Amino acid sequence: MYPDEPFTIGIDIGATKVLIGSVTQEGKVVHQQRYDIDLSSEQLLRSSIYDSIANYIDLQQVRNVSKTIGIGVFGHVDFEHGEWMGSMRLPGMDKVRFREDLQAKYGFDIAVDNDVHAATLAEMYLGKGRQYRNFLYVNVGTGIAAGIVSDGRLVRGAANYAGEIGHIFVGKDMEPCMCGSNWCLETAASGGGMIHRANRWLMDYPDSILASKIQSGTVVSVDIFRAALLGDPLAGKIHQEFIWSMGIVLVNLVNILNPEAIIMGGGVLQDEWLMKELSTFVFEHAAKVPSNALKEITLTELGPQVVGLLGASCLAWNYEAMN
Amino acid sequence: MYPDEPFTIGIDIGATKVLIGSVTQEGKVVHQQRYDIDLSSEQLLRSSIYDSIANYIDLQQVRNVSKTIGIGVFGHVDFEHGEWMGSMRLPGMDKVRFREDLQAKYGFDIAVDNDVHAATLAEMYLGKGRQYRNFLYVNVGTGIAAGIVSDGRLVRGAANYAGEIGHIFVGKDMEPCMCGSNWCLETAASGGGMIHRANRWLMDYPDSILASKIQSGTVVSVDIFRAALLGDPLAGKIHQEFIWSMGIVLVNLVNILNPEAIIMGGGVLQDEWLMKELSTFVFEHAAKVPSNALKEITLTELGPQVVGLLGASCLAWNYEAMN
Repeated sequence: MYPDEPFTIGIDIGATKVLIGSVTQEGKVVHQQRYDIDLSSEQLLRSSIYDSIANYIDLQQVRNVSKTIGIGVFGHVDFEHGEWMGSMRLPGMDKVRFREDLQAKYGFDIAVDNDVHAATLAEMYLGKGRQYRNFLYVNVGTGIAAGIVSDGRLVRGAANYAGEIGHIFVGKDMEPCMCGSNWCLETAASGGGMIHRANRWLMDYPDSILASKIQSGTVVSVDIFRAALLGDPLAGKIHQEFIWSMGIVLVNLVNILNPEAIIMGGGVLQDEWLMKELSTFVFEHAAKVPSNALKEITLTELGPQVVGLLGASCLAWNYEAMN
Repeated sequence: MYPDEPFTIGIDIGATKVLIGSVTQEGKVVHQQRYDIDLSSEQLLRSSIYDSIANYIDLQQVRNVSKTIGIGVFGHVDFEHGEWMGSMRLPGMDKVRFREDLQAKYGFDIAVDNDVHAATLAEMYLGKGRQYRNFLYVNVGTGIAAGIVSDGRLVRGAANYAGEIGHIFVGKDMEPCMCGSNWCLETAASGGGMIHRANRWLMDYPDSILASKIQSGTVVSVDIFRAALLGDPLAGKIHQEFIWSMGIVLVNLVNILNPEAIIMGGGVLQDEWLMKELSTFVFEHAAKVPSNALKEITLTELGPQVVGLLGASCLAWNYEAMN
């Protein structure tokens, strides 16, 4: 079933599934299994995750498997202790002690981090980040977050929460954000924020070609960008403010962190022309020295279907390299 | 003349002087000498710096001196090669190859970095930063810049230019900045920016108690803050926008970098009540997890007269630790 090369077990825990896979050192997924996750109670959440892991490990040959399992999960992770602290989607949950619960049981070391840090490490080991000692990975999906790599090391911060760029200031008196402020990047440039704007602004643009999709609740960010290209005024306004606010934040990040590259991923960014517009904005407005040092703003080459598993495996590799 | 303990030679190159000193491992300056710097031509700039160094080294006993000299200088430094690349104050200057020019001549290793990175290392080795693995040093003077320490290491970026926070976006359609944008922190919160605003806005507030100082060109930021405390409306407006814009940028930095502490220095920040106002703003507006992880926003304990020399010496220590 498996080739002879060594592999790592990676676990990607998202809001809708637990994906577990076996990843070779070249980043090839040789086997994977998808399990349902049950968020309906804390008890069921735990058991659905732990049962998935038990099932996958039972199924595997352990020959050639590396000694660390990597787990990438949404929300806040205590990297040092290997604990999932919670998520805004699961208010009040008790922390899940992955390392404590799994290490003794299965005999593996356990490395845990959040999904964006995991994806950043996937860029570093397997993606375009291999070329750079200093780069940013920026994920624009339902929310917005970043991973920062400085001199070949992931910047984690005091509580492993570095990279929370969704709440950077992009303008006064905008929509209220769930964080409590009313100036946040996410309200203008995340998938969720743009869909919210489409709903809110539709009354001013009743003839928008997106009207029926908005009213039926099926509009997504890619629809908005395509409608903007066709000249739809509502979509055009949302698109312009996306470029402005995302551009401002990327300029801030270039000035603060002086990266060689910005690698972007996430469901919102699927069009090369958007990347070109963002690049033009950033190179025009960033300070001269960091602008000259920035080689590219580019889309990730790692597919959305595999980046979670690859990231989880890279977490394990990074953990082994650090310990 | 010297105690028996080992010391390091530090060189602090500013726009008005070259300060050279001998610093013990505990951060005591046991000897120092101030020299004039001549910015009137590139030739004289070089010779005034190199003559100062020659004079100081001639005067010293070399017993117990450490093997690396540290040089802190304003502007842009190529840290890797030990070269001063230039400064906006010295447009078009050729780079100064400190390492190449001085290493062979005197037999010392040469570590060069910019003044803010040097001051950040001074915090890390000798100041409040000793308590923290993750902190920011923010200098608010004529301009504004920061040093970022992540997991005990200074974040330098691709071109050693990380920390350029003076051009972070704080609002649309403000005064034009020398960088070409019209939204920069520096125009609202640097010493230079606030003095410029006092001049520009005086016509709307002719009865300001600062009027004569502004007209004679002698007003400084400390005057503005004290006048704001006395209820002067012009000073109050500048003060409010200082707190707002500096606060927004600190919130951004806390969300992006998740530090344990922010240590502030520079001529503009001399009053504890300003620090209290900034702290209140930041703890109120930063995202919950990084806000909870932030232990303090505090003034540096390193005096403005010595921080340049201490920073230059710490550069040498850091260079030795890395090599």
